[in-house]
Amino acid sequence: MFQPKDPGFAARLTAAIPRQPTMKTLGFTVVSIAAGEVVLAMPLNLAFTQEYGFLHGGIVTVGLDGAAGYATFSLLPADAAIVTIELKTSFLAPAKGERFIFEGHVIKSGRSLTFCEAKGFAEERGQRKLIATMTATMITVTGRKGTAV
Amino acid sequence: MFQPKDPGFAARLTAAIPRQPTMKTLGFTVVSIAAGEVVLAMPLNLAFTQEYGFLHGGIVTVGLDGAAGYATFSLLPADAAIVTIELKTSFLAPAKGERFIFEGHVIKSGRSLTFCEAKGFAEERGQRKLIATMTATMITVTGRKGTAV
Amino acid sequence: MFQPKDPGFAARLTAAIPRQPTMKTLGFTVVSIAAGEVVLAMPLNLAFTQEYGFLHGGIVTVGLDGAAGYATFSLLPADAAIVTIELKTSFLAPAKGERFIFEGHVIKSGRSLTFCEAKGFAEERGQRKLIATMTATMITVTGRKGTAV
Amino acid sequence: MFQPKDPGFAARLTAAIPRQPTMKTLGFTVVSIAAGEVVLAMPLNLAFTQEYGFLHGGIVTVGLDGAAGYATFSLLPADAAIVTIELKTSFLAPAKGERFIFEGHVIKSGRSLTFCEAKGFAEERGQRKLIATMTATMITVTGRKGTAV
Repeated sequence: MFQPKDPGFAARLTAAIPRQPTMKTLGFTVVSIAAGEVVLAMPLNLAFTQEYGFLHGGIVTVGLDGAAGYATFSLLPADAAIVTIELKTSFLAPAKGERFIFEGHVIKSGRSLTFCEAKGFAEERGQRKLIATMTATMITVTGRKGTAV
Repeated sequence: MFQPKDPGFAARLTAAIPRQPTMKTLGFTVVSIAAGEVVLAMPLNLAFTQEYGFLHGGIVTVGLDGAAGYATFSLLPADAAIVTIELKTSFLAPAKGERFIFEGHVIKSGRSLTFCEAKGFAEERGQRKLIATMTATMITVTGRKGTAV
Repeated sequence: MFQPKDPGFAARLTAAIPRQPTMKTLGFTVVSIAAGEVVLAMPLNLAFTQEYGFLHGGIVTVGLDGAAGYATFSLLPADAAIVTIELKTSFLAPAKGERFIFEGHVIKSGRSLTFCEAKGFAEERGQRKLIATMTATMITVTGRKGTAV
Repeated sequence: MFQPKDPGFAARLTAAIPRQPTMKTLGFTVVSIAAGEVVLAMPLNLAFTQEYGFLHGGIVTVGLDGAAGYATFSLLPADAAIVTIELKTSFLAPAKGERFIFEGHVIKSGRSLTFCEAKGFAEERGQRKLIATMTATMITVTGRKGTAV
């Protein structure tokens, strides 16, 4: 459905994701990478829970934004970068589980803007449950370093 | 402007915030607590940056959600809990600085729902710059443990 | 997938939608009604365009909120009402067309909160194009008249 | 605080707003125009209410988006146009009143993106009540007609 501008996007992302400091610190791993669609996983880490032992909503948002951002990234030229302009997360159920899955995909990839979405799932005793959804807008930046506006 | 239902809310929050696992892990401290308004601070930690050395947007969202959530909390009875239903973060400028400040305040505190907002600032060489804004909806839960829906 | 609490929901909605003042004024008609999923249509009306002759984004939001709201409604008891707490619309493409279609569906129907989504399409010379997406949170109210908070 | 690029922005907006089809149809008038801040008013019109006689949330969104959009517009060169990328509206209280006021203001005006906010108020028997807040992102487009992405 989407045509990536860099044919080597999958190898590039596979190498880059685990090196990003926040992704590394939180233990994110790559589940799958396709053009416009990236899936990440993260184990429960008690250091990032809220009062009730569930994963903190902000950390859930890290996973959602990460998956959607890398999905956006997969379609860009090798020298382009992206910045999240805004995101909205809806928390459908408590982030209660042993492992969390974040599926990001692109809805529309435009000249400068990309609209993307992500879903977050909690895995508990072999059951996978939808816990959060996110919509976000990303802007492509070229030749600058991570500053969009 | 707001009438807290628990007169001891400030002491309660001052003790509780640094104990919350995610807040503790990320090094959040309390700057100030008032009825319907809480300010938190967090030092830059390179383990939570993105590719360009700026604080990750999801971690910025942890700070915004934390400040707004505790602002909401300050107005509730001592036995009530809150859950974030949804939040939207706008990223106005790169989260570049040595220290980050998150100001949360309540817009409307209702029977079951609270509408709240937060602003995030980066401090760099004595300058404070607005880097992000958030709006969120929280729901009050009583007698259950962190599950709103 | 969803179990409506009122088996007569389709007849009830079919009668109610065209009677709602805003829906009537804007010429909305019902395309289809199922449990947790409602599709509405609206012809282009030049009185509701913006500067460039495209349908105004706020009017697009009326359609998205309407479709999602009625989708939420379809699952509730006959005496319940709903109120939109918040909504976010992303405008993917200009609302340029002769007719607009709004598909609303429920993501999660909870005790008091419903999370729902909607997609807006423009039809132009037989082509249907995605122009907008929305996510919203609704709250169920019983025994009161349209006041949720 | 903001420096408009077109010194004649106020006259330009005062003339343009009542001519925009949707604004005209809904009876919006200009209350005040300043650099980065525009206030609009709209009388209650029963044709645009929902089931309970309150102004429809989508129509409230028209007013919020209009006020914020014109606030954004006030800072741009005379030949630039803007498009709303996304908006989020929070509905704090029922839109019950005889007249509605929408205050839009710019938070950050950047090279291509503008972050803006708006507040909606209902006036009833001389009382003004906050009923809705909105945050939105706008993109500046030059030399094209209303198409941003």
